[in-house]
Amino acid sequence: MSDSPAIAYARANRERFLEELKELLRIPSVSTLPEHQPDMLRAARWVAEDLTRTGMEHAEIIPTDGHPLVYADWLHAPGKPTVLCYGHYDVQPTDPIEEWATPPFEPSVREGNLYARGSTDDKGQLAMHLKALESLMKAGEGRLPLNVWVIIEGEEEVSGAGIDAFIKAHPERLACDVVIVSDTEMFAPGLPSLTVGLRGLCYTEIVAQGPASDLHSGSYGGASPNPFFALCQIIAKLKDEDGHVLIPGFYDRVKAPADAELNAWASLPFDEAEYLQNEVGSSELTGEPGYSVQYRTWARPTLEVHGMPGGFTGAGAKTVIPARASAKVSMRLVPDQDPRAIFDLFRDHVLSLCPRGIRLEVKLLGAGDPVAVSTDNRFVQVAAMAMSDVYGKETVYIRTGGSIPIVAAFEKHLKAPALLMGFGLPDCAAHGPNEKFLIENFYGGTESLVRFFESLGG
Amino acid sequence: MSDSPAIAYARANRERFLEELKELLRIPSVSTLPEHQPDMLRAARWVAEDLTRTGMEHAEIIPTDGHPLVYADWLHAPGKPTVLCYGHYDVQPTDPIEEWATPPFEPSVREGNLYARGSTDDKGQLAMHLKALESLMKAGEGRLPLNVWVIIEGEEEVSGAGIDAFIKAHPERLACDVVIVSDTEMFAPGLPSLTVGLRGLCYTEIVAQGPASDLHSGSYGGASPNPFFALCQIIAKLKDEDGHVLIPGFYDRVKAPADAELNAWASLPFDEAEYLQNEVGSSELTGEPGYSVQYRTWARPTLEVHGMPGGFTGAGAKTVIPARASAKVSMRLVPDQDPRAIFDLFRDHVLSLCPRGIRLEVKLLGAGDPVAVSTDNRFVQVAAMAMSDVYGKETVYIRTGGSIPIVAAFEKHLKAPALLMGFGLPDCAAHGPNEKFLIENFYGGTESLVRFFESLGG
Repeated sequence: MSDSPAIAYARANRERFLEELKELLRIPSVSTLPEHQPDMLRAARWVAEDLTRTGMEHAEIIPTDGHPLVYADWLHAPGKPTVLCYGHYDVQPTDPIEEWATPPFEPSVREGNLYARGSTDDKGQLAMHLKALESLMKAGEGRLPLNVWVIIEGEEEVSGAGIDAFIKAHPERLACDVVIVSDTEMFAPGLPSLTVGLRGLCYTEIVAQGPASDLHSGSYGGASPNPFFALCQIIAKLKDEDGHVLIPGFYDRVKAPADAELNAWASLPFDEAEYLQNEVGSSELTGEPGYSVQYRTWARPTLEVHGMPGGFTGAGAKTVIPARASAKVSMRLVPDQDPRAIFDLFRDHVLSLCPRGIRLEVKLLGAGDPVAVSTDNRFVQVAAMAMSDVYGKETVYIRTGGSIPIVAAFEKHLKAPALLMGFGLPDCAAHGPNEKFLIENFYGGTESLVRFFESLGG
Repeated sequence: MSDSPAIAYARANRERFLEELKELLRIPSVSTLPEHQPDMLRAARWVAEDLTRTGMEHAEIIPTDGHPLVYADWLHAPGKPTVLCYGHYDVQPTDPIEEWATPPFEPSVREGNLYARGSTDDKGQLAMHLKALESLMKAGEGRLPLNVWVIIEGEEEVSGAGIDAFIKAHPERLACDVVIVSDTEMFAPGLPSLTVGLRGLCYTEIVAQGPASDLHSGSYGGASPNPFFALCQIIAKLKDEDGHVLIPGFYDRVKAPADAELNAWASLPFDEAEYLQNEVGSSELTGEPGYSVQYRTWARPTLEVHGMPGGFTGAGAKTVIPARASAKVSMRLVPDQDPRAIFDLFRDHVLSLCPRGIRLEVKLLGAGDPVAVSTDNRFVQVAAMAMSDVYGKETVYIRTGGSIPIVAAFEKHLKAPALLMGFGLPDCAAHGPNEKFLIENFYGGTESLVRFFESLGG
C-alpha cells in the first residue's frame, strides 16, 4: 500500500505534532480537584483553537454543569459515512507527586517515551485525532474524505455527567455511523489491538461517623466506637482472600466470555512472570483461582479500596479516635452488571455490616456501564485493516479492565457502535506516577487514524 | 484553714498568671511536626525564663537528641523533703483544624474556659507549677518551704526519648522523695481527684506494600494486590466486634484491679447516658461486655486505629491501586503488660496475617509502661488533703486511660512515687479540636499545689 498525501503530511510534521502535544500536556487539567478549574478552561480552549486551525468548523466550547465540552464538525462529504471522534482533555491527579522522576506537567522525552500526566490518558491519544484530521484536511485541500463530528469532554476521570447529559439532550447533533475512541491500550508493543470490551465502574465512598468530635484514644479507647476500625471490619467482609466479592447478588448478571474469545486470549503473547515483575512489581499476584490474568482483569468484576481519608496521617504519632473516617471503594463491572443496581446491593450490604455505635453514609460518586463491542461490523474490519497496514501485523481483539463510561452512552443514545482504537501500552502508567506515551505510537496511531478515515471514505 | 501569704499572693495575681499562660499557649510547639522545630525552642526558652524570674536557680535548657529539656532547682531547705515537678511544653497537632471555633494558638476565653491547644495538656497545668512556685517564693521572701527540682520536657506527645535518656544517665540530678505530675483530669467538675493508675502505650505503624508503583485499578484490579484491602483484612482480625483484642498472649499479664478499687469506682458520680451524649456523642458505646465504662477505659487494654495514610484522599474519585498504604495502630496497656513485649506479639501476629502479594513492615513509634501508684504513702495523703482543702470535698482516687510514659521511668530510676495531681476535666478535649481548660481549675490547681508544698515542708 503506497503512502497517501495525508500520510506523507503526517510524517513530515511529526516533530511539530509532538511539540503541540507538549503544549497541551503543560496545562494541569486535573478534573477532580477544584483548584484546577481555570486550567480546565485553558485546556478546552487549546483543543478548540487547534480544531479551528485544522480547518474543522463550528468549533465551540459548550458549558455543562461541570467542566465544558469542546465541539467541532466538518460535514461536507454527502453520501459518505459520518464518524464521531471522542476524547477527553481532563487528567487524573498526580499524587504521589514525589515518585515522579520529572514534574508531571513538564513533558520530558526519555528513551523514546514522552513522560507527562495525560501523555497516554488521554491527551496524547486525543492529539492523534487532531493531527490525523489536520493531515487529511491539509493534504485534501480543505476537505475530509468523510463527515466528522468531534466531541471532547473534560470529565472522563470523574465519571462526569456533562457529556452524558449533552448526548441525551442532543443526540441529533452527534448522529453518526460509528464512534472512534482512542483511550485504550495495545496488548503489547508493535501489536495492533482493537478493544472490544470494557469493564464498567461503580465508584463509592463510605463515610463512617463514630464520636461527635475527635477524642483522645487514651481517655476513650475501649468505650468509644472508632470509625476506622469499623471501616476495616466492613471492608474485610466485602471480598474474601481469593478476591471473590461477598456482596449478595453481585455475580447474578455476570456473563462469561464465549469460548472462542477465551481461546483467542490464551494465544496472546503473555508472560505472567514478566507481567508480575515488570508491570505489577508485587511479590505475587492475587485474584480468583482458576481464572487467567486476562480473564480476571477483563471479564471478572472486582472491588478495590483507593484511599481512606480521615484521622491522623502525618509523620509520627497522634493518639486520636477520629470522629469521622471514610473509604473510597470502587467496583469494576462486566457485562451485564448494571452499576446502579450494583450500587444498591453494595449500599444495602455495607449498611447491614454497620458495627455498633457507628453511623454510615454510602455515596455513589460515579457509575459507568460495562461495554461489549460486536466484531462483525465493517467499521471494526476496516479499522483492524488500517492498523495492520501501519504496524505490519494482524490486529488482535482484546478487552480492557478499565472503564470509559461514555462508550455505553454513545451506543445507547446514538445507536452507533464504538471503535476502541487505542495506542497506549500496558506499562504506560496511566493514573500513576511517571505516566508515559511511546512516541512511536503517537505517530503510528495518527497514521492508523488517517488510513482508517481514508479507507472508510474512499 | 486560714489563707497563707502564698495563697494570698496567688489570688492577688490571678489575672497576670492567666495572661502569662496565654503567652505560652501562643507558641505552636507541636512536637511531632518537624516544621515546628523553632517553636519548640521558643517554648523551652519561655519556660526557662519564667523559672528564673520566679527565683528558681540554675535554669538551663538541656539539649537532647530530640526537643530540649528545661531544668531548674532550689535546694536550700536542708532536712525538708525534695519534690520533683514535671510537665511538658509540647502539644498535639491541631487537625482537624477546620473544627476549631477559634484558632488553636490564639487563646480565647469563653464561659469561664480558656480555649487553646495545650490549655489543659499540658501548658495550663505546667503553668500551675510555675505560678505555685512563684507564689511561695515571693511570699516567702525568696525561700521555698522545701527543696524543688523542675524538669519540663518537649517530647511527651511523641513518647520522646530525651527525658528518658536524661534520667537514666543522671538520676542523681533529680534525686527526690516524690514526683509531682499535673497532666491528668479531675473525675468531675469540683471533685478533687488523685490519679493512681495510668494505661501504657504501644504505638505502631503497619506499612503495606503491594505493587511497585501506583496502578490503574481498571487495568490491574483483580490481579494486583491492594495494600489498603490487605490492611483492612489484617486490622479486622486484630480485635473482635466486642472489642476483645485477638493477638495471642495479649492478655496474659493483665492484672485485674482489687475489689476495693472497683467498688470505689462504682460509687463515683457517673451517668453513662450523659457520658454517651455529652462526651462521646456516638449512637452507642462500644467495648467489652461485662465491664463498666471506667473499667474499660482505665483498666482494660484496647487497640485503636488513628489513621490510614496513602492512596487517594482528595475530594472526588481516583481509581488507583496504591503501591503503599499504612495504618497507625496503637494499644493502650494496663498493669502488668510490657509495651515492648506487646509490640513483639503484635508484630508477629500482624506478620502472620499478611495476605498474598503484600510485603509488610511493622514499626514501633512509641512505648510507655502502665503505672499503678500505691495510695498508702504520706505524699498521697498530704496531696489529697491539700486538694480537699481547696475544693471543699473529699479527694477521690481514680485512674486514667491515657499514658504518661515518663511516670514509670521516674518510679524505676528515681525510686520515687509519682503523684498525679491533675486539674483537667473530662470534656477538656485534650488532643481534639477546641481543647479548653476551666480557668477556675487553673487557679484551684495552683492553690492546691501551694498548699501541698506548704504542708509537706511545714
